[in-house]
Amino acid sequence: MAGPIEHIDGGTITTAQGFKAGATYVGIKTFSEDKMDMGMLLSDTPCSVAGVFTKSALVSPSVTVNRETIAAGGTVRGLVVNSGIANAGVGDQGYTDAKQMASLAAVGLGVKPEEVLVFSTGVIGVELPMTLIKKGVDEIKLVEDGGNALARSMMTTDTRTKETGVKVNLAGTEVNISGVAKGSGMIHPNMATMLCFVATDAAVEQDFLRAILPDVADSTLNMLDIDGDTSTNDSLVVLANGAAGNTPINAGSEDAPAFKAALTEVLVQLTRQLAQDGEGASKLIVAEVHGAKDIPDARLVAKTITSSLLVKSAVYGSDPNWGRLIMALGRSGAEMAESKIDLYINGVCIMEAGKPVPFHRDAVVALMRGDEVTFGVNLNLADGKATSWGCDLTEEYVVINSAYTT
Amino acid sequence: MAGPIEHIDGGTITTAQGFKAGATYVGIKTFSEDKMDMGMLLSDTPCSVAGVFTKSALVSPSVTVNRETIAAGGTVRGLVVNSGIANAGVGDQGYTDAKQMASLAAVGLGVKPEEVLVFSTGVIGVELPMTLIKKGVDEIKLVEDGGNALARSMMTTDTRTKETGVKVNLAGTEVNISGVAKGSGMIHPNMATMLCFVATDAAVEQDFLRAILPDVADSTLNMLDIDGDTSTNDSLVVLANGAAGNTPINAGSEDAPAFKAALTEVLVQLTRQLAQDGEGASKLIVAEVHGAKDIPDARLVAKTITSSLLVKSAVYGSDPNWGRLIMALGRSGAEMAESKIDLYINGVCIMEAGKPVPFHRDAVVALMRGDEVTFGVNLNLADGKATSWGCDLTEEYVVINSAYTT
Repeated sequence: MAGPIEHIDGGTITTAQGFKAGATYVGIKTFSEDKMDMGMLLSDTPCSVAGVFTKSALVSPSVTVNRETIAAGGTVRGLVVNSGIANAGVGDQGYTDAKQMASLAAVGLGVKPEEVLVFSTGVIGVELPMTLIKKGVDEIKLVEDGGNALARSMMTTDTRTKETGVKVNLAGTEVNISGVAKGSGMIHPNMATMLCFVATDAAVEQDFLRAILPDVADSTLNMLDIDGDTSTNDSLVVLANGAAGNTPINAGSEDAPAFKAALTEVLVQLTRQLAQDGEGASKLIVAEVHGAKDIPDARLVAKTITSSLLVKSAVYGSDPNWGRLIMALGRSGAEMAESKIDLYINGVCIMEAGKPVPFHRDAVVALMRGDEVTFGVNLNLADGKATSWGCDLTEEYVVINSAYTT
Repeated sequence: MAGPIEHIDGGTITTAQGFKAGATYVGIKTFSEDKMDMGMLLSDTPCSVAGVFTKSALVSPSVTVNRETIAAGGTVRGLVVNSGIANAGVGDQGYTDAKQMASLAAVGLGVKPEEVLVFSTGVIGVELPMTLIKKGVDEIKLVEDGGNALARSMMTTDTRTKETGVKVNLAGTEVNISGVAKGSGMIHPNMATMLCFVATDAAVEQDFLRAILPDVADSTLNMLDIDGDTSTNDSLVVLANGAAGNTPINAGSEDAPAFKAALTEVLVQLTRQLAQDGEGASKLIVAEVHGAKDIPDARLVAKTITSSLLVKSAVYGSDPNWGRLIMALGRSGAEMAESKIDLYINGVCIMEAGKPVPFHRDAVVALMRGDEVTFGVNLNLADGKATSWGCDLTEEYVVINSAYTT
C-alpha cells in the first residue's frame, strides 16, 4: 500500500533524483530584474515522457516540435527553455528555429536532438536570436541543485518562482515528484504562456503516464485555464526517469492511483502558486463546487466563478456580493435548480436552498480580507464536484496590461 | 421598394406614433442622482409583441411572467419598469410580486394585466416594495413625449440614457422604429440587467416579428453579450402598434427585409451606446470579422476579441499589441489558418497572410487614442462575417466593482 503524500520543504524540480539543471543570462529578456533567461534540465537516464499542450488554433512552432517529439514515442533526456521571446507569430522561421534550438541543446546536454524538448515564452512576433541561444547552451552548467535557477530563468512577469515537490512511498520504495511552473494560464495569456515541467524519479511506464496526464491536467492547471487563458505556447510535460528503482508503474499497478494522486498534488500546488502570482493579484480565489449533475457541470460552475470579472472585483474589495455568485452560477451552463442551491464564503453559509441566509456582514468581510477567499457551492443535485483557482482583479492588473509593448 | 433608413435626431421610444410614456421617483433606487426609478409605456392600440430573454438558468420571476405573457400569444398594450431592485434571488415571493406589479400597472394604464409586461433592474436578493410600486403607478403621467423620462427611470449605473429612432418608407408608408435601453449585457451583469424596449408604429404581423427577433438580437445585442454578461433579467421586447397604417408586414412582404434591416439598425445604435457607456469605459471597441468559415465562426472570433481582458486593457493604453489579437483569434475556437490571416487596427494593416507588416507605431497609437478602436480581421477562408462591440478595461471599472454593495 502507498504511504501518505509528504510535502518537501524547498522542493525544486531537481529534488527528484537523477536530474540536473542550470540557467544563465544571455540577453533575450530585457525587462527582468532576475538575470536569467535560459535554462536546461537533464536526466542521467532516458525518461518516460507525457505532455499536454495549448488548445489554441495558433500555436508556437516550439509546441509543434514537442508534439512531434512526443508523438514519435521515444524517451527523452532533457529540455531547454528561454524567456523573453515566445517564438510565435513569426511565420515559417519559427519551426526552423525550434528545431535548431533542440539540436544546439542536444550538443550541450550530450544527447540526441530527438531526446530534447524545447520551450519559449515571452513576446509574440519576434524571432529567436539563435546566436544568443547557442551562447546560452554553451554557458549553462548543469548541477544537482540547479532547479531554482531553472525556475528563475523561465520567469517573465512572474514576481516569484513556482516550485514544489512531494514524496510518496509506492510498494516499499520512496519516490519524488517535483515541479516548476511559470506564468498563469488565466492571467498571462499574452506574456505568452504557462509552462510547467514535472520531474519524477519514479519508474513509470510511458503509456500509463500519457494515459493519466490529460485527466490530471483537467483537474489542476486547466481549472485555472479559463477565459483569456489559452496562449500560443501553454505546455505541461512530465519526465519520469526511474532513478528511485521502484517496480515500473503501469495501469495495473496497485499503486497507480497513489502515483496519480501524488502527481495531482504537485500540480495543485503549482496551480495555486500560479493563481497567487497572477498579474496584479492580491488574493487567491478558490471555488469548490459540490452536488453537481456530473464533473463537467461542476467544472463549468467552478470556472465561471473564478473567471468572472465581477466576482474577481468583489473579492478585491472584500465585498460579500453574493448576487454576483448567483449571476455566475446562472450563466455557467450547468444544470441547477434555484431552490436547491447552498452558497458559502470562507465557510460561512450565505444562501441555503436558494434563499439568502442572514449573515454577519462585518465578519464575512473580515474573512475576505485574508489572502485566500473560498466560495463553496452545493447544487444538491448529484455528486459531481470540482475545484477551480483564480485571483482577484485589481487596478494594478489594468496598469500592467494597458502598456506592455509600448 | 423600401426607402433608405433615416436616423431621427433626438429619437426616443415615443417617437413612434401612438405611444405614450411617463416616469416618476418613488424611492426604490437610492443611489441615483437622476431622480426617476419607475416608468411606464402605453400604446393607444393593441401591439404585436416579440421578446428575447436571458439565457441564464437563474432568472428573475419578472422574466418568467413576461415569457408566460408572450407565450399566451395575445397582443399587449404596454409595460412597467422599475430600477433599483431586480426582483431576483428572493424565492417564490418574486413571482407573486411580478404578477401584482402587472396588475397594478394594468389599472394605471387602463388595460388588462395580461396586456402588460413587467421589468425590474437593480440589486439581487431584495424584495420589491409593492407599496412604492403602487405609488409609482398612481403618480406616473403618460405623455406623448415621455420617452426620455422613461429612459431615465431605467438607469442604474448608466451615466447617460440610450435612445434612438429611425424612419423608413415601406411600400409608400413612412414608419418609425424607436428604442431605449439601459445597462450593458457585457459590462453590468450584476447590476443586473440589460433591458431594451423597441416601439414601432409599423403594422407587423406577430408571427413575423417573433420569427425575426432572435436573429436580429444575435447580430446586435448578443454581440455585446459575452463572458460576464448573462444577467438574471436581460430582456429585449419589441412592440408594434400599426399606427403608421401600412399594410401589415409578414414573412412574404416585399418590404420584410427592409423592416428587419431598420429594426437591426435601431439595435445596432443601442448596442453601440451600451458599449460606450460600459462601467469605467473610455472607448468603444468594434471588432469586424470577415472571411470566416461561416457566421457562427465569425461571431466567435469577434466576441473573443471584444471580451478579452488583455485586448481591452491594451485599447485603454492605446497599445497596438497585436500579439493579443493573435492570442484571442487562436483561442476563439473558430477554424483558421495562420498563413491566411490579415489584421487591421483602425484600418491600418498590421498583419498580412500571417506575417507582421511593418507599421508606423506612433500613427497607430494616435488612431487608438480616439473614442473608437476598430479591429479588422480577415480569415480569408470563406464569406462568414460578424461585428461585435465592447469597451476598454480601465482602473475605474475595478474601482466601481470592487465595492458595490458594501
